[in-house]
Amino acid sequence: MMGWDFGAMLMKVGTSDYASIVSINIFVALLCACIVIGHLLEENRWMNESITALIIGICSGVVILLTSKWRSSHILVFSEDLFFIYLLPPIIFNAGFQVKKKQFFRNFMTIMLFGAVGTLISFFIISIGAIGFFKKMDIGLDVNDYLAIGAIFSATDSVCTLQVLNQDETPLLYSLVFGEGVVNDATSVVLFNAIQNFDLGHIDAVIVLEFIGNFFKLFVTSTLLGAVGGLLSAYIIKKLYFGRHSTDREVALMMLMAYLTYMIAELLNLSGILTVFFCGIVMSHYTWHNVTESSRITTKHAFATLSFIAETFLFLYVGMDALDIEKWKFVSDSPGTSIGVSSVLLAMVLVGRAAFVFPLSFLSNLAKKSPNEKIPFKQQITIWWAGLMRGAVSIALAYNQFTRSGHTQIRANAIMITSTITVVLFSTLVFGTMTKPLVSLLCARHSGIPSEPTTPKSFLYPLLDNGQGSEVETGAICIPRPSSLRMLLRTPTHTVHHYWRKFDDAFMRPVFGGRGFVPFIPGSPTERSVHGDEN
Amino acid sequence: MMGWDFGAMLMKVGTSDYASIVSINIFVALLCACIVIGHLLEENRWMNESITALIIGICSGVVILLTSKWRSSHILVFSEDLFFIYLLPPIIFNAGFQVKKKQFFRNFMTIMLFGAVGTLISFFIISIGAIGFFKKMDIGLDVNDYLAIGAIFSATDSVCTLQVLNQDETPLLYSLVFGEGVVNDATSVVLFNAIQNFDLGHIDAVIVLEFIGNFFKLFVTSTLLGAVGGLLSAYIIKKLYFGRHSTDREVALMMLMAYLTYMIAELLNLSGILTVFFCGIVMSHYTWHNVTESSRITTKHAFATLSFIAETFLFLYVGMDALDIEKWKFVSDSPGTSIGVSSVLLAMVLVGRAAFVFPLSFLSNLAKKSPNEKIPFKQQITIWWAGLMRGAVSIALAYNQFTRSGHTQIRANAIMITSTITVVLFSTLVFGTMTKPLVSLLCARHSGIPSEPTTPKSFLYPLLDNGQGSEVETGAICIPRPSSLRMLLRTPTHTVHHYWRKFDDAFMRPVFGGRGFVPFIPGSPTERSVHGDEN
Repeated sequence: MMGWDFGAMLMKVGTSDYASIVSINIFVALLCACIVIGHLLEENRWMNESITALIIGICSGVVILLTSKWRSSHILVFSEDLFFIYLLPPIIFNAGFQVKKKQFFRNFMTIMLFGAVGTLISFFIISIGAIGFFKKMDIGLDVNDYLAIGAIFSATDSVCTLQVLNQDETPLLYSLVFGEGVVNDATSVVLFNAIQNFDLGHIDAVIVLEFIGNFFKLFVTSTLLGAVGGLLSAYIIKKLYFGRHSTDREVALMMLMAYLTYMIAELLNLSGILTVFFCGIVMSHYTWHNVTESSRITTKHAFATLSFIAETFLFLYVGMDALDIEKWKFVSDSPGTSIGVSSVLLAMVLVGRAAFVFPLSFLSNLAKKSPNEKIPFKQQITIWWAGLMRGAVSIALAYNQFTRSGHTQIRANAIMITSTITVVLFSTLVFGTMTKPLVSLLCARHSGIPSEPTTPKSFLYPLLDNGQGSEVETGAICIPRPSSLRMLLRTPTHTVHHYWRKFDDAFMRPVFGGRGFVPFIPGSPTERSVHGDEN
Repeated sequence: MMGWDFGAMLMKVGTSDYASIVSINIFVALLCACIVIGHLLEENRWMNESITALIIGICSGVVILLTSKWRSSHILVFSEDLFFIYLLPPIIFNAGFQVKKKQFFRNFMTIMLFGAVGTLISFFIISIGAIGFFKKMDIGLDVNDYLAIGAIFSATDSVCTLQVLNQDETPLLYSLVFGEGVVNDATSVVLFNAIQNFDLGHIDAVIVLEFIGNFFKLFVTSTLLGAVGGLLSAYIIKKLYFGRHSTDREVALMMLMAYLTYMIAELLNLSGILTVFFCGIVMSHYTWHNVTESSRITTKHAFATLSFIAETFLFLYVGMDALDIEKWKFVSDSPGTSIGVSSVLLAMVLVGRAAFVFPLSFLSNLAKKSPNEKIPFKQQITIWWAGLMRGAVSIALAYNQFTRSGHTQIRANAIMITSTITVVLFSTLVFGTMTKPLVSLLCARHSGIPSEPTTPKSFLYPLLDNGQGSEVETGAICIPRPSSLRMLLRTPTHTVHHYWRKFDDAFMRPVFGGRGFVPFIPGSPTERSVHGDEN
């Protein structure tokens, strides 16, 4: 919507109005094509929307490269700002808004273990591997670069993962892999920023402890900021009784306040990703219940749509950027080095992830008493595999480390950029296409792995359906199922969740609204949604 | 979402990441404040959202001016691209999407008369007035500038008008003033572009005729492009059966295709405003009926929300830009000239509009047989008054004519920019605040002016309500009212509308969908909306 900082992403071909209108036209037309083709390939078991967009992006890149006579393959240079300020927030916010909160919080410790500790393990292994191999290959990087490589390639692509796994078929897996992805993104970005400001002369135990302390402070403050933003929106909408006049104002306020928390987090050098993710969770728990029925349907779908457009845009963009001729020219005289670097990085990604998924799963299983909650070996393989994709976060960080506003003239940097692109393309295309079949092979329904057999599907599900989870969209909106009572009776009553519920009902909901504490809005059929909360 | 061309609007204070994050934060926070304050002032008869945003913008401008020690009052420079490429399309598209089509097409000839011929009359009078007065005042403008002034000040502010008039209380008035506003914007922009490419050496009858011919060609092709874009979206969504998999894809496709038609129109040098307006009309007539129930609710509200955010942004932006110290410095040494210029322009705006509203209303009344369809004198005054506001289109055109990427060093140009800002602020604040009371005075309900007493309110209205029209939002969605049958019987059967309906039912709807021709989407309660079309 706004753009203060787009100087760096002006088109290379020309900066005239006409040229920018042409490139917007091409981009929007390609987005439409991605949607239509993605729809047609929906039934295909190998493809998904991300891969389709990536392939269309690469094809358009080739066409532009040919028509521009090998001068330029992209109509805009990859910009970190575009990515971090405009594309990422709607994607992560929507993830928080639509996530199954019960699943997420039940597995919270495991998710944190994988996302934070796991990413650190992966970071160390990839960094050490990079030092070991690349020093021998004599590419010409310094220690800071090696550490940055560790951070860059520890960032999994949660966007692609979301499209491959299914929240309803494999709920435990989805919540683990996706939750890990969000925490992992945040960890990688924090790690990367820490490295850039790191004085490598004096590393001792105090500095490492300080670093870990900072990380936890950052995690807690980011989460709190997101929660406060969400609660504030709930409070304002509840108190000021917004639905009375305008349903659009409610939706606009939710959107803008979510974006504001993200930008405030960026302003305070916190992790915007974590902030907006938790803001999404809080908004779906409180704010969403305070708005009119129309606003509920609108927010659910509008946020999902914005996120969907941002995701498609992103993969299209990465695909078109992949063929950037400027960087490949540096590499063309030493193709062996480039292939070597990419292979080493891919191997390190595989090893680095294996090195934490299996040990940490073992640890996590030790802590769980019920065999139902343990992570079986087949699922461990899937977790390992589903997190191998590297995506736009890696590319954005690589551009930040190795280029100056999208351009580079140094050979080592050009090799690192092209290798990053190679790893991203290879992992998304090869690992990505193989994930769907792998999941259905290892976690097929008949194998009975779903660890939450009694978790009732949200009754509001058809209403909330973002369209990628279920095959049918039923018209009947709320049919209370008999299993809900059974579930309630079976829920263990002395868990953290139980105390949270008591606290929520006693203090939070009366103030901030939420299920059962919705203010009366004349004519709004609020009863309809009372059954439908998934807490 | 995208920004290829934002070089011109980089912040003046600094171009660092940090500064741009600060300014985004300020802007988003101000947007939230506008929404909350606008909501609180809803009951106030003088205020509306636009004026609130404008005043908040001016106040923030003052605060920034004081904190930056009189160096700069704005956090971004006004950019035509931001306006024409990102803010205007959602506003105009939403206007087409939500407009009452029956009213609009019934008054089509009057709207065209006011919008096209009226704007030309206004343009000539303001240009001649500018030549007469400003030559005496010796400001230092050339003939091209005078003609540009005519075009700049012929552009009424349809955004502000929309907020002052009420589609349900005064339907004829709303459809006339608003319809005129859209056509008027298009005419002004076309006129302005024509002047810039005009060779003023040889003006003869042939060139004038050519100009008029071009204008009609432009009008027809722009409208057709919009209609084709809308029909294409309807066809794709109907044929490919989108609702089957994903409701988000439908919404995304509608958004992107609407934006694509706008950008194609800009690419082909057509009027994007007209194109996207008619695309909105066609989409609400066909495409909207082909999507799932959730998509219908979502699109109605999401488009209205985007438009609402864009409008608020726009007025905030104009308000903050008003205090641009750089331009006012030029003017401060000759305040008399500046006040004189602004007064002359305001007077010309008043005269120019009076000069076409009353004669053209007279002409229009001559053509109508039924006294019901005539425009009474009181409504003529309201039409005259409601179109006096000048807004962002005027500012954007003035910046285009008198500055080079937002800056100017020429005294005459600085005077014209500041005068434009003065006219916009004065007309919006003074004329704008007086419109609401004037409308209720002249067109009060008891005076019985509503010319369409039997027009049934759309039954879907509560569902489609964008929240600014009605005070209550009822939960009951479709209650067929007895008056609908009466209305159907009373409708004259041999009008253009009748033939259009026959054509529509026989050829258009079977191909493109629409009410009664909705493809079967499993589980989607399509029957619900069958009653609710307003065609």
